[in-house]
Amino acid sequence: MYPNILRHPGPTPIPKKVELAMTENMISHRTEEFVRLYKDATERIKSVFGTKQDILLLPSGGTAALEAAVVNTVSPGEEIVVITVGAFGDYFVSICEKYGLHVHKLEKNWGEACTKEELVEFLKPLSNIKAVFATYNETSTGILNPVKQLAEAVHEHSNALFIIDGVSGIGGAPAEMDEWGIDILVTGSQKAMMLPPGLALIAVNEKAWKVIEDNSSTSYYLNLLSYREWAAKSMTPNTPAISLIMGLSAVSDLIEEEGGFSKTIERHEVMKNMVRESMKALSIELLTSDEYASPTITAIRTPEGLNLAAYLGHLKKKYHLDFAGGLGPLQGKIFRFGHMGYCFPSDVLQAVSLMEAGLQDFSYEFEPGAGVKAAQDVFLSSLKKVAYVK
Amino acid sequence: MYPNILRHPGPTPIPKKVELAMTENMISHRTEEFVRLYKDATERIKSVFGTKQDILLLPSGGTAALEAAVVNTVSPGEEIVVITVGAFGDYFVSICEKYGLHVHKLEKNWGEACTKEELVEFLKPLSNIKAVFATYNETSTGILNPVKQLAEAVHEHSNALFIIDGVSGIGGAPAEMDEWGIDILVTGSQKAMMLPPGLALIAVNEKAWKVIEDNSSTSYYLNLLSYREWAAKSMTPNTPAISLIMGLSAVSDLIEEEGGFSKTIERHEVMKNMVRESMKALSIELLTSDEYASPTITAIRTPEGLNLAAYLGHLKKKYHLDFAGGLGPLQGKIFRFGHMGYCFPSDVLQAVSLMEAGLQDFSYEFEPGAGVKAAQDVFLSSLKKVAYVK
Repeated sequence: MYPNILRHPGPTPIPKKVELAMTENMISHRTEEFVRLYKDATERIKSVFGTKQDILLLPSGGTAALEAAVVNTVSPGEEIVVITVGAFGDYFVSICEKYGLHVHKLEKNWGEACTKEELVEFLKPLSNIKAVFATYNETSTGILNPVKQLAEAVHEHSNALFIIDGVSGIGGAPAEMDEWGIDILVTGSQKAMMLPPGLALIAVNEKAWKVIEDNSSTSYYLNLLSYREWAAKSMTPNTPAISLIMGLSAVSDLIEEEGGFSKTIERHEVMKNMVRESMKALSIELLTSDEYASPTITAIRTPEGLNLAAYLGHLKKKYHLDFAGGLGPLQGKIFRFGHMGYCFPSDVLQAVSLMEAGLQDFSYEFEPGAGVKAAQDVFLSSLKKVAYVK
Repeated sequence: MYPNILRHPGPTPIPKKVELAMTENMISHRTEEFVRLYKDATERIKSVFGTKQDILLLPSGGTAALEAAVVNTVSPGEEIVVITVGAFGDYFVSICEKYGLHVHKLEKNWGEACTKEELVEFLKPLSNIKAVFATYNETSTGILNPVKQLAEAVHEHSNALFIIDGVSGIGGAPAEMDEWGIDILVTGSQKAMMLPPGLALIAVNEKAWKVIEDNSSTSYYLNLLSYREWAAKSMTPNTPAISLIMGLSAVSDLIEEEGGFSKTIERHEVMKNMVRESMKALSIELLTSDEYASPTITAIRTPEGLNLAAYLGHLKKKYHLDFAGGLGPLQGKIFRFGHMGYCFPSDVLQAVSLMEAGLQDFSYEFEPGAGVKAAQDVFLSSLKKVAYVK
């Protein structure tokens, strides 16, 4: 009966058009219909990656995409750098360690970004690095790393590959894979991409393909060469996640309807500013600085004196508003407000209003309406950027 | 406009109830709602596996499930046996070879099953086998291997694990994992399970868990211990294929509605007999003997003198009837008639009728109606077995 107001970092709400596209008649993956679907879905989504490379589709979650980026490019014992600014950077580290790589960890405090200068310094003493791995949008803290600048640092230093975890960023944040010099860019379907979980998207440039061709990967399912070989025929080596690919095609329809991906990016930027300004107006602290703030998710510090678990539980139970708590060291200290994918400024106004209602229920001292007003102000002053307001 | 009559070996048609279940409001995988969904979906599907073990759900295709069964149980250099009776047995061999296992291949001609006696003989000289891998239902030939008897042979010989690829069998063929002594049973969602592709289901018994605990698997995404650890909390280590799990729950509703899984098995048995008797009535040869014939897919030899590619293309184009061709050495020599999952005796009658229509279009010499009549005869004499006929 009641809507589930899913303001999580993902999975995120699915647009009706995408849901319906996913219920198209099932087809075989060895037919002309599938070839047409595959071409349409993979060609049109390139703009979201900012690449001319093929987008490979794996029937798997984002974790598998990260693992594919590791297992196809580097071998046990080789030296790599992982830039970690939160839980998902640490996740990348775990995958690399599992494969026996020699990991140099460039670790930042949770809530901070890694700057180009820091990476330059970190790389200086390292002379044998095969790859640098980084998270674009750190879901646990709401940090958007400056990957364009980080790419410069990597390429100025050596011939190492620059490999990016784009999960929770790609689809909502700007991405110019080719222009910025990202060698491999991977993401999952369930965050800013407006799809249910279960589809991994991977783009690989020529430089990375050369490395992959020389790599003796032991993985079968995650063997990217095999995906490339079949992609040349607009097919996949094993049964693909057909309904999600039907949905991916519909995602491109929606992006076109919005006026192209640049408008989608602008909408996310506006939502980010709405959330941040509303929290400032409520004197509730943000975890990150404005400079590196994510356009898809905002980490909000626990309002002083509030029992966070009780507050989040109350919002969920009474108002059906679903925020995510903090992970690891930030548990109990922050909560995370997702504003990615199928989310609009009106949804931000709604969520901020309900947050305020919840604060009143907890007799929290604040000026009711101040948060919503600040969000409205950003919205009204950004109307030109928001395609759906005519 | 026109229905796609998908009589493929998979992907297969999706029931409306499953499609709708998959469009339920998206939820986060770290919520009580998900825990309820996970419990419901995994508990109720156990009957289809014939097991009391937990069913683990991986967001991936069937190939990944096969790879998980390999990478978690055996290590490079170890000796294993792979029973292969067709393309998907060979697929298992490729995965094992990729991981550097010492593979003893028990290979049968395509179209034949592997019997217990053959396995007993094959195992005799082998004293250090860690696992025996076999395909239950070989999709490329329509063979159902006698896994109950094969399990006896394995367990009489040694302590080796018996690991079964259940893709295209599980959901339509009888399976008594616990009673038969299958140690690991894996399958995918898109064949007899009535779901779109993208969900792997894996059941592991205590004996296999002991081996897995001692194994130093390098895979991260396919690490079964990590899935077991999270399953204890009715969750998954990474974002699961949530919409497919919603669908899986609906699949159990449908099976209940049919009168329980034994009725589902009987329906598949009836459809198998309908297809086989209709081909015999048309004097069109079957690839396999009745004894080991699959209840989910039937391989039919090219009717004498017919241009198979042209015939299949014609059925597809004119009648929207989609059969699959032969794989590998059987290309051009057989075609495959899928009758699994959301398929009913009425669908078999329809497909046989359209096949006959196509034969007439090709001026093939036969007695029109003979195939349909034979299928009808089987249907009418089996009415008690078919739950949906009241």
